[in-house]
Amino acid sequence: MEHNLDHTISLLARTPAALNALLRDLPDTWTTKNEGENTWSAFDVVGHLIHGERTDWMPRAKIVLQFGETRAFEPFDRWGHVRESQGKPLGQLLDEFARLRSENLDELRALNLQQEDLARRGRHPALGVVTLSELLATWAAHDLTHLHQISRIMAHQYREAVGPWSKYLGVLQCAGHSS
Amino acid sequence: MEHNLDHTISLLARTPAALNALLRDLPDTWTTKNEGENTWSAFDVVGHLIHGERTDWMPRAKIVLQFGETRAFEPFDRWGHVRESQGKPLGQLLDEFARLRSENLDELRALNLQQEDLARRGRHPALGVVTLSELLATWAAHDLTHLHQISRIMAHQYREAVGPWSKYLGVLQCAGHSS
Repeated sequence: MEHNLDHTISLLARTPAALNALLRDLPDTWTTKNEGENTWSAFDVVGHLIHGERTDWMPRAKIVLQFGETRAFEPFDRWGHVRESQGKPLGQLLDEFARLRSENLDELRALNLQQEDLARRGRHPALGVVTLSELLATWAAHDLTHLHQISRIMAHQYREAVGPWSKYLGVLQCAGHSS
Repeated sequence: MEHNLDHTISLLARTPAALNALLRDLPDTWTTKNEGENTWSAFDVVGHLIHGERTDWMPRAKIVLQFGETRAFEPFDRWGHVRESQGKPLGQLLDEFARLRSENLDELRALNLQQEDLARRGRHPALGVVTLSELLATWAAHDLTHLHQISRIMAHQYREAVGPWSKYLGVLQCAGHSS
């Protein structure tokens, strides 16, 4: 399946509501526990998604459009969300994510990108040359990687509770490749 | 984390709305494509969840309460949803899942289960002796295994589109242990 900007936007627009429906007002034990040392909780993941809205996707798209390959993106800080989200209730983070995502999608739509824009090339600090199309497809797939991760983090909390069923539950076999 | 019935119900109650927010009215290409031969699409997964509401979780809970270890559960038909969901629009399946889940949770709450009930033992046709507590914890973890799977199925559609970012996206490394 090739990248399709409308399909990307359709998915990006739904993630905040999906996370809201899943996580808001859940008992803390589901949302604040992680998978062990140096791993994230669902709360941390929402913080990370917020940080991406602020510093990753649209800022990088604008660098591609303005500078092409001549200016590499700022490296993304994978722990940049920690201080930003500390002490906030999860409901506030979910609201913040929804607001930032909505603003970013408004901005993306306003760019009215054409096929030739999507083919424009930028420079990733580690991956080298990438296209705007790849950046935007990754934005959507990145939402999915973190939904995948949240499902796994939450299932981990019931690893013992499910007893012998653990071997039938694929999510409990997942080695945690989505950190 | 031990099994906690209130936590289980909190999670089970949210899954239909989360899937609804994620999937309803998405372009078909996200919801009807699968990961290759003999794999499921997101549409198939919703059908499977409906089939579980009808034939798996509450029917099994009632068998435990009524017959204990003396009567094994009916084996669950992992392809039982195919005929039931064929030709229906996804929106109808999402509505059906939400309605059945809500009815089942009403019934579960009405049982007013106590700790001694949760410790009751039943017989799984393949796994042998299991407890009611394990069955109910598995119901919740099973939702998560399929949310994990849906994220992976959808991300798979952009496997090429993300270009060199694929190596950073954990969901694309997932071997598909949750079938």
